[in-house]
Amino acid sequence: MSASMGTNSYGKDGIRLVLVRREPRRHELRDLTVGIRLAGDFDRVHTEGDNSAVLPTDTMRSTVYALAQEHLTGCIEDFGVAVARRLLSVTPAASTARVELVEHRWTRSSVAGALHAHAFESGSAERATASVTVDRGGQVDVHSGLDGLSLLKTTDSAFSGFLRDELTVLPETEDRILATEVAADWAHLPGHTPAYDVERAAARRALVETFASHRSRSVQHTLHAMGAALLAACPDAAEVHLRLPNKHHVAVDLQAVGLTNDRAVFVATDRPYGVIEGTVTRG
Amino acid sequence: MSASMGTNSYGKDGIRLVLVRREPRRHELRDLTVGIRLAGDFDRVHTEGDNSAVLPTDTMRSTVYALAQEHLTGCIEDFGVAVARRLLSVTPAASTARVELVEHRWTRSSVAGALHAHAFESGSAERATASVTVDRGGQVDVHSGLDGLSLLKTTDSAFSGFLRDELTVLPETEDRILATEVAADWAHLPGHTPAYDVERAAARRALVETFASHRSRSVQHTLHAMGAALLAACPDAAEVHLRLPNKHHVAVDLQAVGLTNDRAVFVATDRPYGVIEGTVTRG
Amino acid sequence: MSASMGTNSYGKDGIRLVLVRREPRRHELRDLTVGIRLAGDFDRVHTEGDNSAVLPTDTMRSTVYALAQEHLTGCIEDFGVAVARRLLSVTPAASTARVELVEHRWTRSSVAGALHAHAFESGSAERATASVTVDRGGQVDVHSGLDGLSLLKTTDSAFSGFLRDELTVLPETEDRILATEVAADWAHLPGHTPAYDVERAAARRALVETFASHRSRSVQHTLHAMGAALLAACPDAAEVHLRLPNKHHVAVDLQAVGLTNDRAVFVATDRPYGVIEGTVTRG
Amino acid sequence: MSASMGTNSYGKDGIRLVLVRREPRRHELRDLTVGIRLAGDFDRVHTEGDNSAVLPTDTMRSTVYALAQEHLTGCIEDFGVAVARRLLSVTPAASTARVELVEHRWTRSSVAGALHAHAFESGSAERATASVTVDRGGQVDVHSGLDGLSLLKTTDSAFSGFLRDELTVLPETEDRILATEVAADWAHLPGHTPAYDVERAAARRALVETFASHRSRSVQHTLHAMGAALLAACPDAAEVHLRLPNKHHVAVDLQAVGLTNDRAVFVATDRPYGVIEGTVTRG
Repeated sequence: MSASMGTNSYGKDGIRLVLVRREPRRHELRDLTVGIRLAGDFDRVHTEGDNSAVLPTDTMRSTVYALAQEHLTGCIEDFGVAVARRLLSVTPAASTARVELVEHRWTRSSVAGALHAHAFESGSAERATASVTVDRGGQVDVHSGLDGLSLLKTTDSAFSGFLRDELTVLPETEDRILATEVAADWAHLPGHTPAYDVERAAARRALVETFASHRSRSVQHTLHAMGAALLAACPDAAEVHLRLPNKHHVAVDLQAVGLTNDRAVFVATDRPYGVIEGTVTRG
Repeated sequence: MSASMGTNSYGKDGIRLVLVRREPRRHELRDLTVGIRLAGDFDRVHTEGDNSAVLPTDTMRSTVYALAQEHLTGCIEDFGVAVARRLLSVTPAASTARVELVEHRWTRSSVAGALHAHAFESGSAERATASVTVDRGGQVDVHSGLDGLSLLKTTDSAFSGFLRDELTVLPETEDRILATEVAADWAHLPGHTPAYDVERAAARRALVETFASHRSRSVQHTLHAMGAALLAACPDAAEVHLRLPNKHHVAVDLQAVGLTNDRAVFVATDRPYGVIEGTVTRG
Repeated sequence: MSASMGTNSYGKDGIRLVLVRREPRRHELRDLTVGIRLAGDFDRVHTEGDNSAVLPTDTMRSTVYALAQEHLTGCIEDFGVAVARRLLSVTPAASTARVELVEHRWTRSSVAGALHAHAFESGSAERATASVTVDRGGQVDVHSGLDGLSLLKTTDSAFSGFLRDELTVLPETEDRILATEVAADWAHLPGHTPAYDVERAAARRALVETFASHRSRSVQHTLHAMGAALLAACPDAAEVHLRLPNKHHVAVDLQAVGLTNDRAVFVATDRPYGVIEGTVTRG
Repeated sequence: MSASMGTNSYGKDGIRLVLVRREPRRHELRDLTVGIRLAGDFDRVHTEGDNSAVLPTDTMRSTVYALAQEHLTGCIEDFGVAVARRLLSVTPAASTARVELVEHRWTRSSVAGALHAHAFESGSAERATASVTVDRGGQVDVHSGLDGLSLLKTTDSAFSGFLRDELTVLPETEDRILATEVAADWAHLPGHTPAYDVERAAARRALVETFASHRSRSVQHTLHAMGAALLAACPDAAEVHLRLPNKHHVAVDLQAVGLTNDRAVFVATDRPYGVIEGTVTRG
């Protein structure tokens, strides 16, 4: 029996990069986790054990570190493009290079009311994300995003009028807690290269404000509203993919112990959880 | 600006099911985590907040539990088909139902040398997996798999003759530790419905034995050999996707402290790690 | 052979409580994870299987939910005291009840520049913590704390002049990155019952500002300074235990690839990591 | 205000060691995670920033690697003693050195029915553990243990006759699933130095067999029986500490959907969970 290679790729994940820029008056701090993937014609690597076309994943790691000082001066998207181009240029067999970037948030500490020159604090799970793909023809595809943003509203969320079968026991509700952890990823219109950080701030604001203000009939309903708001706020975005787990909060039955519970006491549950995902596009 | 829905789906993840079958002479134990996704025409749910087409994800959960006694009598693949068919039948708007199944491994405990009737032990991260998709036309697509299988060999693994650029510092090696955690997922030939558990055992054996015996020139090289062996051992499998992280083991430099280290003492590193993935197909 | 019980305790962990207070103008949100432990004379439970002295852990869970509306009106410490007293009062065999509380941080979302009445956002790993123990004599012991607070400074941290043996290869440094994730826990002077939330804010400020301003000779040196500052800022605290993992940042060697790296490019490493812990006391 | 140091210690966690012994006929593999703590008179390190007494934690790491070839030839306890003694000998300020060891389990792969010379497989969360403390007077205290061992029985477990208050809603049961993940840690009688690996195998067997065979009235009841059995099987053990989380399995209410569920279909829940821990001693 013969066996041949279908789609394949290889790379390095979990490259941790911290970059310090020591400006005269204060230090700037960047904290990234980077992943790399190359795809192309690597058939003989697999079938023959011929490594002559393979740039080691260790070199991908070195490339991220080597390019940081010169190219990580602005947004992660631009750094991703530089890394991807470099990897393509030194790997003839690769037809595409993809760079996945995650930026961890630090804020400058305050001391006696003033922002400190070189001390930072964090503790946040919210992260800026980007995915950059460059192909042999020079085509650049940039996705921007964010994840780890937890949102919760205590009212203005209903779920009723849904389809029922004989296994459906869920009661309808006009007033529940709605909670999620947003993962958003948006593609850009051909040829559009916005200031990605400015765009991300506008995107985040649209997501948060829409979640807060929307009178939700379902997570799907809110997803569409959030996606539409993001597209309105980000004119260079072509479409946005949202993944919104439904982090269920169940009102505790206190009647059994002689107490009332008018939407006050809830259990935050981990599993199972609803998963709602979809892409919102223009037009 | 108008915004419309692109691809979307919804469902439930993390449905934990334990099923006990109390046979006269001994109890049988099954332990699954199940995920569900429905996709189809749910546009008005998103854009209008009209829930009339939406089967609640809570009902998906109930469906898994309600069908377990009757349908989880054999392999997880068959149970997945039953759940998917049921969900499609009660949700007219859905065009496809997908069921993701993970089975956690328990082994029967021994007491005084004999297998016990109702006590089990575990501690294993290795799991059987399956993904079943059924569409409105009755088409059934079954993927089988396994994950969490850690493999390590202490020799017969080289990585040399690779591409170098000026950022490449990795030394060539003819003898390194090769370690990975296998995630395998195979599709079936049209119309083929093997005994999935028998097939999975054959697949596992092929993966383990090939990893052990293969003289590896690279992870890619081993990936192809493992995939080819799996296809040879599983005549109903059409192709197999393998994801093989390269869990690097770095020889410790003991020269600095006056000791030799001839491939004896290694650091097992977590991050960064190589990621090699690909699909091996017939022909 | 006879075997008897030594120290033992039992309880419930991972009790997730979300409490919403629906004030006329805006909603207040609390989000806690609670753990309970009872200890006392439970010997016959263990040796005889006599459960008559055992309050079920399910009742501990119910108690947390039942008391929330009336008693979770202020700081978590006061809620912990109420829960502990209740559990002691209904469990004659228990000599002490301990309640461990963790509060997850949410901040009110802004919409169009104004704080929203019922929408919140998070993503923070930083948490307020407390441990309350009440004994049969009515003695109340309250520990307050916080954890998940990541701090990093890019200079003003040295590590030199340390002990060396023939296995020591670490170079001395006068300027390194210092990074940690603070876990702090402070006990109170007998009879002192401060406003625990006000105290926690003062404690946090002392920790953050001291970390930022201190010219560190070692993590131990900074630990002492942080602890002393906390005690100075919190007059009701008797002593503070600090756990400060040393999250190593290693400068990347770029010489091998022909580049300089003057304390700019670092790898943030996960493992192994230093662990420094100690208690700072008054006087 | 003056502040002084109370109890303190420092060390290194997460030291990952893989050791390969290349015997002529087959390779032996060891896979450990090691943690170190030194305690003693380190006051001036904290208060003055005087590092002259501090052996760097980086050297602790080096020590683990440097001693592995010579001293990791048998059980992890003996290796721990060697590491602890070495660290004490080179650190005059330390009064005690503690070494925590965890061994990850690998099993030799089979190929064509024969055990392979150099290929291994894993996927197990069960681990052998040990904690070794050596003091300046040469006193050696060895604890042995294991963790990550999941046990489940489908019958012979009751929980009834317990204490009730007005918040107690839990129904009594004479037949439930009992599931736990064992963490066991046993101390040794003064002067006793058994073959620790042989002892651990006997301990494990006692734990597993007792869990299986015991007619459980509560987790506490089973904990005592397991502890007593371990002490009977391990004559050199002085006492054993057991931590047995109660991993609740809740029978699904299928009546609401018109089905019966006679102890067949269960939800395995994550949180909250019961925690039962205690020490069983001789006599």
